Amino acid sequence: MAHKTIIGVMGPGEVCPPVVAEAAYRLGGLLAREGWVTLCGGRDQGVMDAVSRGAKAAGGLTVGILPVPGLSISEAIDIPIITDVNMARNNINVVSSAVVVACGIGIGTASEIALALCAGKHVIMLLPDPNAWQLFHGLRPQLTHAATTPEDVIPIIRRLLSEA
Amino acid sequence: MAHKTIIGVMGPGEVCPPVVAEAAYRLGGLLAREGWVTLCGGRDQGVMDAVSRGAKAAGGLTVGILPVPGLSISEAIDIPIITDVNMARNNINVVSSAVVVACGIGIGTASEIALALCAGKHVIMLLPDPNAWQLFHGLRPQLTHAATTPEDVIPIIRRLLSEA
Amino acid sequence: MAHKTIIGVMGPGEVCPPVVAEAAYRLGGLLAREGWVTLCGGRDQGVMDAVSRGAKAAGGLTVGILPVPGLSISEAIDIPIITDVNMARNNINVVSSAVVVACGIGIGTASEIALALCAGKHVIMLLPDPNAWQLFHGLRPQLTHAATTPEDVIPIIRRLLSEA
Amino acid sequence: MAHKTIIGVMGPGEVCPPVVAEAAYRLGGLLAREGWVTLCGGRDQGVMDAVSRGAKAAGGLTVGILPVPGLSISEAIDIPIITDVNMARNNINVVSSAVVVACGIGIGTASEIALALCAGKHVIMLLPDPNAWQLFHGLRPQLTHAATTPEDVIPIIRRLLSEA
Repeated sequence: MAHKTIIGVMGPGEVCPPVVAEAAYRLGGLLAREGWVTLCGGRDQGVMDAVSRGAKAAGGLTVGILPVPGLSISEAIDIPIITDVNMARNNINVVSSAVVVACGIGIGTASEIALALCAGKHVIMLLPDPNAWQLFHGLRPQLTHAATTPEDVIPIIRRLLSEA
Repeated sequence: MAHKTIIGVMGPGEVCPPVVAEAAYRLGGLLAREGWVTLCGGRDQGVMDAVSRGAKAAGGLTVGILPVPGLSISEAIDIPIITDVNMARNNINVVSSAVVVACGIGIGTASEIALALCAGKHVIMLLPDPNAWQLFHGLRPQLTHAATTPEDVIPIIRRLLSEA
Repeated sequence: MAHKTIIGVMGPGEVCPPVVAEAAYRLGGLLAREGWVTLCGGRDQGVMDAVSRGAKAAGGLTVGILPVPGLSISEAIDIPIITDVNMARNNINVVSSAVVVACGIGIGTASEIALALCAGKHVIMLLPDPNAWQLFHGLRPQLTHAATTPEDVIPIIRRLLSEA
Repeated sequence: MAHKTIIGVMGPGEVCPPVVAEAAYRLGGLLAREGWVTLCGGRDQGVMDAVSRGAKAAGGLTVGILPVPGLSISEAIDIPIITDVNMARNNINVVSSAVVVACGIGIGTASEIALALCAGKHVIMLLPDPNAWQLFHGLRPQLTHAATTPEDVIPIIRRLLSEA
């Protein structure tokens, strides 16, 4: 069976605090070392760019799910998928991922956490925004997990994959 | 110009507190009396069913945007649109609406609030969940509005439409 | 039950022969007189505009399913639904329709005929392009029907609805 | 720049003549040897399965764009993307591909050729169905190309990529 395990990493694009981008970069490297494919929104911004660069630097494979044609794409994306469904691509991001990691918060990230939980996917919130954690953990306690470092994310994913 | 003004009303489906359903029913009637079309997710559950029944009882026109074929549809829906894009239909709900009203909260509702704000739409949160208000008002203060009764929603919509 | 019967009418937009637009206008009036809702792609061009104007002139209700925000919309559309999924909206057009009428041919129309047949929908080809008829009737003989006038379309729809 | 060149290969699934499946298998190998990624609809049927197996046997990378969760997937797919937009995924297939190859014909394939041409993509019809060729070459002569063997497809793609 050729299928690779795909881990989705969501997070803010244009407005992304450096600490969040750094965590995403480190996370990308860790995911790659596990042999997992990194899937993100594909833009050359914020968490999307950082996690893809981190994964590529560690020899990983990266998939970017883009909203529409003609946007700038992260140079670290191997496989750009152009959905042409604009923000509805956020649902494709999460449904295609075995596990979703939300790194930081933004309004698009909030939509992806919500859509992932709608689809019954587990969401690991890395550097969770307190309000987002309150809302989403309150609505779906069993599907939401918190992590404070990229290193903490890996054993949670391993456990979730083994239980799937 | 034949175009009618469409107001989207989002809210919990299967698990919906009676006070939220009652507010949605009253809101449907108020929207219909303004001559506005009510748009919702179209199911025969919770806020979707209540707002549509309220609108129909007051002589309004109702549009339901359904996720996939074959689901039960509220009897109070005039125009069922079957998108066949599953939860990605949540983005169609909000992009098609001049203004979005979120009545109560659920995980699907949270996705619709986030997607509406992504699209630059104003969202009126009726009976707002405190955690949802904290998160979404924090992320987009100028696009989020709170209301405690259906009656309070109407002048906010009127003002937003006049400024559009 | 409030649900109205929705008939989808597809056809060329920008490049539309006058005889095709005239047939679409007449068809819109006939659909409206049956009490059916007319659904189309919503643009102010070709068959979309003509069928909507015909339906409105006869007192009908018209729904336009638009690809993206910001496009010009036919003035004769009552309910514009903005899908923001670009050409993937062609699948929403046909899945939402009880029966699909293809009036003339264009490359978008060809996609809608194919998607309708994929979804198991009956397609009535009005003023059928010979090549399109050969291809689609050859692939799905039982779901494809030919008509040479708008008046011929109505009894075919009536029969298909009664068999559904 | 990490982006790989993606070539989409479309064709019949369930009902696929052996000669078409064999051509798809050979084509997959040829695409892989060029270093191109093969993208298809991802199912374990017909052209989708054959082109993916051919590509994997030659050491290529394969992406499958699936309509909904829970379907059987070709074992030769490396990266399964679950769109959850059902047949609207056909538009994602073609918009994400630099060039589209239609191998044989089916009703889904016809939709993909039409959607590709809508999006301005070049389509190479391998073992073209005469009716499909008549229709689509008639509608878009400059974007449609015919090939009778998989080997003939490669120089056409090379030329189209160099002109892009």
